[in-house]
Amino acid sequence: MSDASVAVPLPAPEAIVGRRSTRRFDPARPLADDLLVRLLGLATHAPSSYNLQPWRFLVVRSARNRQRLRACAYNQPKVGEAAAMVIVLGYLGGAETDLGPMLERRVAVGGMTAEAAAEVRGRVAATFAAKADRPTWALRSSMLAAATLMIAAESLGVASAPMEGFDPERVRAEFGVPDDHIVCCLVALGYAPERDRFPGRFPLDRVCYEEHFGGPWTLGEPSPPA
Amino acid sequence: MSDASVAVPLPAPEAIVGRRSTRRFDPARPLADDLLVRLLGLATHAPSSYNLQPWRFLVVRSARNRQRLRACAYNQPKVGEAAAMVIVLGYLGGAETDLGPMLERRVAVGGMTAEAAAEVRGRVAATFAAKADRPTWALRSSMLAAATLMIAAESLGVASAPMEGFDPERVRAEFGVPDDHIVCCLVALGYAPERDRFPGRFPLDRVCYEEHFGGPWTLGEPSPPA
Repeated sequence: MSDASVAVPLPAPEAIVGRRSTRRFDPARPLADDLLVRLLGLATHAPSSYNLQPWRFLVVRSARNRQRLRACAYNQPKVGEAAAMVIVLGYLGGAETDLGPMLERRVAVGGMTAEAAAEVRGRVAATFAAKADRPTWALRSSMLAAATLMIAAESLGVASAPMEGFDPERVRAEFGVPDDHIVCCLVALGYAPERDRFPGRFPLDRVCYEEHFGGPWTLGEPSPPA
Repeated sequence: MSDASVAVPLPAPEAIVGRRSTRRFDPARPLADDLLVRLLGLATHAPSSYNLQPWRFLVVRSARNRQRLRACAYNQPKVGEAAAMVIVLGYLGGAETDLGPMLERRVAVGGMTAEAAAEVRGRVAATFAAKADRPTWALRSSMLAAATLMIAAESLGVASAPMEGFDPERVRAEFGVPDDHIVCCLVALGYAPERDRFPGRFPLDRVCYEEHFGGPWTLGEPSPPA
């Protein structure tokens, strides 16, 4: 597909089940600008606490920069082949720079009273000031955005691959990422010459518990996808 | 909706854009077992490195246990109202218990040669043994699964809310979560009596960069959703 405006998106369950983490991309097929923009716009619809939206997307498309990124990622070929590489960053400073404006926005749309916003602002700012683990906080929301990006991509015919095999400090140095951002993951986007085989997933009774850790799963398995 | 089998799922972009983090759920509307099973099954289709699937879903539905969980989550009312609370855990031991079987599975489906699998197994096991940050690794994939769960839910008419306001050690103690699992987030599932207002998102030129950190975004904004 070359034009986002003509794509008929897949239903979400089909996109979720059909998505494969692509190991090889067709280096000859670019990703249309409007489709890339659409995918990133959809990714920003992921949720985040207090709507602080800590994700940042550093999009690397030039062949030279993809080769530089490939060198930061254990030389994996797909980084050089993908039409676009997205370095998903997490911004650590949102409590100071974004909390006030986001609460004002919520008040403006009628989602919160001004008094409640003032209370939340004071409480959340204090929590952030006292809390050491901002990277975990930023990573949570940024990974929600990464998943959203990949499901959106699949639904619009674009293959993707999440990557956590990279040297974050090297990425930081090569691409100028400042200390108040963390490198969460890489997402490769493009077109796959062939579909990777589905290796399957654990059955639900292996990964689900009822009511208490270890509580046996009695609800059964989902029906196979149609 | 009360029967998963009759739902017509939304296209992925509509589910992504339409999802709101629900603040109040209708406590009188249960979530059908088959629909819950379907949603969790879809969540397991999230990607993970080497298919290690470190997510675990501890599903809390009894009123008593939801009240216990509410007490671990700053007494937020939605925990008591949601039809099901999913405590999303991350399992830290997959490199030892799951890597071998998952690589065998990949060989079995024709996705990898036995020689490549042996090489990967040795290399990845060594990396995990040397690497201190298993919680970050488990959190990444588990948040991908949490996002998948919420998009799937929205597409099938189920409201959701991700929550990171909880005391992880208290959750661990109350629900028997062992030390080799982390508490990643909570996801509330159910039905919303009213739709929360959309507070908007940052424009792409605020969260996207081209080629290098700070590189100005020239590709524009996505069209508003239809």
